[in-house]
Amino acid sequence: MKTRYSLLFLAFSVSLVFYLGSCSGKKQQQSTEKERLPYALVIHGGAGTIKPKNMDAETKAQYEKALNEALDIGENILKNGGTALDAVENVIVYLENSPLFNAGKGAVFTYEGHNELDASIMDGKTHKAGAVGGVTIVKNPIRAARAVMEKSPHVLLTCAGANRFAIEQGLDTVSPEYFYTESRWEALQRRLEKEKKKEPVGAREEPDAHKFGTVGCVALDKQGNLAAGTSTGGLTAKRWNRIGDSPIIGAGTYADNATCAVSCTGHGEYFIREAVAHDMSARMAYLGESVQEAGEHIINEKLKAIGGAGGLIAIDQYGQIAMPFNTSGMYRGYVTPDERKVGIFK
Amino acid sequence: MKTRYSLLFLAFSVSLVFYLGSCSGKKQQQSTEKERLPYALVIHGGAGTIKPKNMDAETKAQYEKALNEALDIGENILKNGGTALDAVENVIVYLENSPLFNAGKGAVFTYEGHNELDASIMDGKTHKAGAVGGVTIVKNPIRAARAVMEKSPHVLLTCAGANRFAIEQGLDTVSPEYFYTESRWEALQRRLEKEKKKEPVGAREEPDAHKFGTVGCVALDKQGNLAAGTSTGGLTAKRWNRIGDSPIIGAGTYADNATCAVSCTGHGEYFIREAVAHDMSARMAYLGESVQEAGEHIINEKLKAIGGAGGLIAIDQYGQIAMPFNTSGMYRGYVTPDERKVGIFK
Repeated sequence: MKTRYSLLFLAFSVSLVFYLGSCSGKKQQQSTEKERLPYALVIHGGAGTIKPKNMDAETKAQYEKALNEALDIGENILKNGGTALDAVENVIVYLENSPLFNAGKGAVFTYEGHNELDASIMDGKTHKAGAVGGVTIVKNPIRAARAVMEKSPHVLLTCAGANRFAIEQGLDTVSPEYFYTESRWEALQRRLEKEKKKEPVGAREEPDAHKFGTVGCVALDKQGNLAAGTSTGGLTAKRWNRIGDSPIIGAGTYADNATCAVSCTGHGEYFIREAVAHDMSARMAYLGESVQEAGEHIINEKLKAIGGAGGLIAIDQYGQIAMPFNTSGMYRGYVTPDERKVGIFK
Repeated sequence: MKTRYSLLFLAFSVSLVFYLGSCSGKKQQQSTEKERLPYALVIHGGAGTIKPKNMDAETKAQYEKALNEALDIGENILKNGGTALDAVENVIVYLENSPLFNAGKGAVFTYEGHNELDASIMDGKTHKAGAVGGVTIVKNPIRAARAVMEKSPHVLLTCAGANRFAIEQGLDTVSPEYFYTESRWEALQRRLEKEKKKEPVGAREEPDAHKFGTVGCVALDKQGNLAAGTSTGGLTAKRWNRIGDSPIIGAGTYADNATCAVSCTGHGEYFIREAVAHDMSARMAYLGESVQEAGEHIINEKLKAIGGAGGLIAIDQYGQIAMPFNTSGMYRGYVTPDERKVGIFK
């Protein structure tokens, strides 16, 4: 009789361990096993059709140099105890000022031949956020996004109003011609030619590095706070003051200290429809997924299945990072106290 | 020996049932117990400080009549086999045309004394979505949102570009003066007076029915498809082409046949920062919560804790509905083949 009860007890115990392990074990395991890095920072410069055969050694070296310089700026801030928000903002300012990327100087042209810039930033500690859509004279849209977060009661300002707000805040403004770059102008001409020949206006866009050069940055600082930011010129030949996912909190950008900070790049319409940045946070919070598992699922399963080209960068509260993309390349890099890497191709 | 094995088997079986029941039982239980209603539709006309003592019988009757007429329009479409999208669009057109609500005719005024309208719509079957932000001459912004979804490659168009798109699509346009209503103009003057006296520009807004009169509709049709839509004039005295949550997919509006259709109303900035509409869908998908549980948690716990005033309407694939709000009132109503109700106060 005694043996029987022992066996019963054993069976129940094994089952209980099995039950607890299956339902909530994943999260517990992570928090005890992982050590928190003092700081970490991840950047992207856009995902798209970026193949080794289409890129000469000099161009590759230029991109790698720019990515490394961006990491330097962020690392310097974080190493010295600066905030994740400051790191994200200043790294993105650097990327906006580089003509290599589709953000700030280097932004693509709209159908009508203008440059309309979008950016957003979010603080993982407070859930405060700011964004601008369609600004045309703001030198660094990410600074305008931060000013919206800190100096206005709103989250998203657009078009002429957002320009006006930036002027009132004393931010650097430029003449619209500042954003002209030859390569982006030519990209627009090629696109308009293509449209004239066959593609009907309004056709879904093909993935293309020149269209998807959004920049973004996510960071963890020494205080344990996360932040995320994204900045872009949008899609080449976009029309009707179109706004993509980059300035949309929950689509292109999200940050929550309890889960992760995320910045997306790709065909923005798909990222809006799937609320990609918030979905990263939700999968980690509700399913107990790691930042890598959530990123892999969303980019390489969910988005791939519906033809949504692009990628994202994400970082969790331990400094664990993910940089999944479903295109042939994504300009990217990360830095921690122990490691630094930049990459372009798959 | 045989008895021992039997007992062991029994113990494991009981434990297995316990395990399955705890981890995924909620969802299974729902799908077997619940019957799917042939159709159902829910509407809101905004949440805010709406108290019986501030509303005379005549005004109350006007609102109830309008809510019932909106339900008539939706029910008629759904009963005759029309789509959830058509029901949502046409119900919102009716609410936009009524001066009682802060959407279309009846929209609040911006700081500069203009009317800038936002709207969005989403199809739960395809995840396709369309939205406009800051249109000024489009009689029915919800029709423009649907045109963006169906006739453009984009999801969100804004400001002058969105106006132009609506004209190109042949939608009804009006002179900006069409949107003038005396009560909204007076609300702006009161607000500006208040600001002059004490409140600094940029102070967080207080909940107020005149500020939060957004309209929305969610529906389940006979084909089992869900759709959601939202339309608004935004916040009284909003500035700098501010856009709130209403045209943001994932914030003010979301629809997914697998989970729910949602339309939000309230202090939009909070709804953007918490990605409320997508969070409804995520909690149902990942935590197995019912539409009521998810709505209750988000509105009366999460948002309440951070001072985010407002409410939402939601419907799941079975026609189960939720209408939570954390303000003193929300104009609302629902209709199913068996039941119809409209309400204003708590």
